Amino acid sequence: MNITVIGGGSWATALIKILSEKNVKIKWWLRDEVAINHIKKHHHNPSYLSGVELHPSKIKPYKSLKESLKNSEWVLLAIPAAFIEEALAPADPAWFVDKKFISGVKGMIPSTNLLVTDWFSEKYNIPRENMGAIAGPCHAEEVALEKQSYLTIASEGEKTAKDFAELMACRFVKTSYITDLNGVEYSAVMKNIVALACGITHGMGAGDNFQAVMVSNAMLEIERLVNKIAPSERTINSSAYLGDLLVTAYSQFSRNRTFGNMLGRGYSVKTAQMEMKMIAEGYYATKCIHELNKTLKVEMPILNFTYGILYKNAPLKKSFETLKGKLI
Amino acid sequence: MNITVIGGGSWATALIKILSEKNVKIKWWLRDEVAINHIKKHHHNPSYLSGVELHPSKIKPYKSLKESLKNSEWVLLAIPAAFIEEALAPADPAWFVDKKFISGVKGMIPSTNLLVTDWFSEKYNIPRENMGAIAGPCHAEEVALEKQSYLTIASEGEKTAKDFAELMACRFVKTSYITDLNGVEYSAVMKNIVALACGITHGMGAGDNFQAVMVSNAMLEIERLVNKIAPSERTINSSAYLGDLLVTAYSQFSRNRTFGNMLGRGYSVKTAQMEMKMIAEGYYATKCIHELNKTLKVEMPILNFTYGILYKNAPLKKSFETLKGKLI
Repeated sequence: MNITVIGGGSWATALIKILSEKNVKIKWWLRDEVAINHIKKHHHNPSYLSGVELHPSKIKPYKSLKESLKNSEWVLLAIPAAFIEEALAPADPAWFVDKKFISGVKGMIPSTNLLVTDWFSEKYNIPRENMGAIAGPCHAEEVALEKQSYLTIASEGEKTAKDFAELMACRFVKTSYITDLNGVEYSAVMKNIVALACGITHGMGAGDNFQAVMVSNAMLEIERLVNKIAPSERTINSSAYLGDLLVTAYSQFSRNRTFGNMLGRGYSVKTAQMEMKMIAEGYYATKCIHELNKTLKVEMPILNFTYGILYKNAPLKKSFETLKGKLI
Repeated sequence: MNITVIGGGSWATALIKILSEKNVKIKWWLRDEVAINHIKKHHHNPSYLSGVELHPSKIKPYKSLKESLKNSEWVLLAIPAAFIEEALAPADPAWFVDKKFISGVKGMIPSTNLLVTDWFSEKYNIPRENMGAIAGPCHAEEVALEKQSYLTIASEGEKTAKDFAELMACRFVKTSYITDLNGVEYSAVMKNIVALACGITHGMGAGDNFQAVMVSNAMLEIERLVNKIAPSERTINSSAYLGDLLVTAYSQFSRNRTFGNMLGRGYSVKTAQMEMKMIAEGYYATKCIHELNKTLKVEMPILNFTYGILYKNAPLKKSFETLKGKLI
């Protein structure tokens, strides 16, 4: 079995590490030629999770996306949502015919307010039952260390979900599957927005008591959103939803939390972005969900708090007072 | 208005700090005479949250429980559950007549497997509508620092809940009230058991990915338990339930987590107890809930994991494998 992995960052590298535990050939497309040559020569990714051994018998890096897709049954996408349009610009729908597509991305396509799988299935004409997404709490760094992790594979096609869940199960990863594709995707998008809000209030001096209130209210907010936008029976407190939120909201390493923290300490959005040298996924997600919510009209105080500070230059203290009054 | 506070630890001191923001007289019963004299002379608790100023115009420490209860409308209990029977042994039901009783305790009376409010209302013959409990995520240390916190007051008597919620609201504490008394109490008991399990698995080397899976599964387990033992409509993801679990499970300072961590690193229960010099609340709670669950028969893999290691000398690795297989 062949699988194409798209993306060269730490999450792509972690997913490749998991897959290389199994009897599959991994065709890896990276845009960075220096990285490709380094991987071919040294069998390690030079920039991300450099400790992970990339066995050449299982993993082959490609410069050409088209070449990397040939003969693959599966395509696994793991690049930040904001860069997907640009990265896949040369791709032709014909390259994806008869393949199953799994998104490892937790974000939305900024220009369209679409979830990654919705955008992909539309653009490349892939049947929805052949689309899936990876959910669950999973720091790439812990996968590199083979720490016990759990992933949930979601697809409206139950066979797609089940097959890919089997493919991703290994010594240190337990997998399960569900059919609530859009539910887990929206939930994952929201967790980055919540991590921003946690960072902002932490930067303003709020402590662990407030953080716990924020995260529990965030779960109520996420539940309200997904019940409206993707109605379905779901166990919202399973690891695919709540667990995923927790690992991000309580992570000291989350880029979203770090970015928010700088804003909470008084940095402007521009200065914080310059200091971070990259833009946190939640920055775009906040705008996408805020746009969608203009018609949905779900009660979302945490989203509104974050949106105000990121996009409307809202004063911190007044925003905090408003948020404080809405949390329970 | 007079209120009697029972207990001399950090939680009692934090509750007194909150109450002293309001127009009430606080009659404080402590068993430690040295502390009483220190507080009278220096207006600070010598052993807990020593930075908190205890204004003598509002707060009067008492050596006699009976004296401290005279003319009080409210009694607020804040001592570890394991010490309640002994501390209140001299008390007579007549002392509590016509008073409202609020438990700030998150535990069960070990000898009886009863929640604190159930035990108290039975023993001192207090009507259930006059009983309440404090829920919500709240480190005492953060109250001392006036960090924004949220508390939920629960009582089957709505007026009791509402009145005490008003009493506890201040500049840095937002309060709300609910009628699900036993629900929040069982949930609070469970969070200490979960913190033990988090500590054990952390001590064994599990990382943040696993912790997120544990805590999300713990919410499912808590929900199953309270739905069975105290059926009621409730918003399980509000700060009174989920928030309370989060602040404990993610706390580096939780005694339960620290105790569990030692067990996970291979200490025996006895050695860990000796090293800690005090017993974590969850140690007793594990046994109480395990006893109750013999008849309830709720699916509780995290409880069973903790119980096995604490009381049955179950091998760590095998217990972890069993637990791992049951989490989703």
